[in-house]
Amino acid sequence: MLKLYIGNKNYSSWSMRPWVLLKQAGIPFEEVMLRFDTMEPGSAFKQAAGSINPVGKVPVLLDGELAIWDTLAIAEYLAERFPDQHLWPQATAARARARSVCAEMHSGFSALRSHCGMNIEASLPEVGAVIWRDQPAVRADVQRLVEMWSALLAEHGGPLLFGSRFSIADAYFAPVCTRLKTYALPVPAEIAAYVERVHALPGVKAWIADALTEHAFVVIDEPYRAAR
Amino acid sequence: MLKLYIGNKNYSSWSMRPWVLLKQAGIPFEEVMLRFDTMEPGSAFKQAAGSINPVGKVPVLLDGELAIWDTLAIAEYLAERFPDQHLWPQATAARARARSVCAEMHSGFSALRSHCGMNIEASLPEVGAVIWRDQPAVRADVQRLVEMWSALLAEHGGPLLFGSRFSIADAYFAPVCTRLKTYALPVPAEIAAYVERVHALPGVKAWIADALTEHAFVVIDEPYRAAR
Ligand SMILES: N[C@@H](CCC(=O)N[C@@H](CS)C(=O)NCC(=O)O)C(=O)O
Ligand SMILES: N[C@@H](CCC(=O)N[C@@H](CS)C(=O)NCC(=O)O)C(=O)O
Repeated sequence: MLKLYIGNKNYSSWSMRPWVLLKQAGIPFEEVMLRFDTMEPGSAFKQAAGSINPVGKVPVLLDGELAIWDTLAIAEYLAERFPDQHLWPQATAARARARSVCAEMHSGFSALRSHCGMNIEASLPEVGAVIWRDQPAVRADVQRLVEMWSALLAEHGGPLLFGSRFSIADAYFAPVCTRLKTYALPVPAEIAAYVERVHALPGVKAWIADALTEHAFVVIDEPYRAAR
Repeated sequence: MLKLYIGNKNYSSWSMRPWVLLKQAGIPFEEVMLRFDTMEPGSAFKQAAGSINPVGKVPVLLDGELAIWDTLAIAEYLAERFPDQHLWPQATAARARARSVCAEMHSGFSALRSHCGMNIEASLPEVGAVIWRDQPAVRADVQRLVEMWSALLAEHGGPLLFGSRFSIADAYFAPVCTRLKTYALPVPAEIAAYVERVHALPGVKAWIADALTEHAFVVIDEPYRAAR
């Protein structure tokens, strides 16, 4: 059975991607949570993560002895191993576009990622308003998301980014959808509607439900709160 | 015919990856260079790059009307379009590993990338020595490269990362090899030998030869020199 190592569901945006992908596709897997801590060298998290992959991060997928790290490599591996699931769009051009936007997410949107860390359980609209006012790079990141999603929804007819079938691209942007909600960042109505549709997916609902039952307060992931 | 948009060969490490990959595989393509400038909004580079892809960066691959941006999406597209070239390793486990290390490069090694920007024409051993002395994060990045490459060379028998056949992984680390040389960063002998083997590949030699004939001095990519 596949085994997926993840971080805290409330905070670990990268872990959310392959977890939601597996759930949505109905692929059975065992999950192992490595709880976030100080993340300093030698911490419990770093030791545990370092023992399963050389990068010392999550997520990591184990298929028997084979360890695959990094969300993009995991996504490609699952797409190849479960071809009938069509985890990437089937048309060549759509698949290329899906890979372009996922790679863009993978190495980009750094302002949004650093100012608006994932924190599913929190509601931070006032923090979001100040960030929105003071951080042009966050506004530019959100503007790019709006352009990207609008174009894909128009081109493929929705309700998801590449049509009616859930794809790796939706999994990739799911943690971005939760951030837009947590920080109440302003987006056009059709984008807010996509964010709601993502929240309503069974795999996303299941992840969020689990996140809400967690009680950890991880200081390094809480720049805006003193306690829960 | 495929068309690849690239930046200056002396500076554009991301452009180098798909260009070297196409050359090594003997896949014909047309290249179009968008010269780096201030990279400010509205600059000639940003306008030209923005007209071919929504991210406004290079590289971009055009296959007819289809624009594919980001090196990873381009690599996956080429691997699918030219299956006989085996651009990824053929064995499932090796392919998963290759994708893990490429994804790691894609989103990581930020200290090495920011302190030791690619500059093929320059020779900066003294700058490199100071960086090596003062930047533990750069030392950690190089240490991870040494571990990664040593393990792959041992596991697959060399001379390249996944055996005797050039793969996307070698293309991905080629610009890192040029940086190790430019800044004369210290690495063990077997790693220095791999760096030399990469420099001797026809595709890499051709890119470097072109880089050396360029005469542009791009200020934002020259934190360590006042002129050539
Ligand atoms: N590029 C990686 C990013 C993984 C990542 O940064 N994971 C975070 C948790 S969301 C982590 O493990 N951080 C631990 C650390 O940096 O020490 C991927 O796509 O999987
Ligand atoms: N993640 C992208 C990175 C592309 C990238 O950063 N390209 C640089 C040139 S090496 C660029 O076009 N920069 C222009 C800018 O940032 O304005 C990829 O893998 O292709």
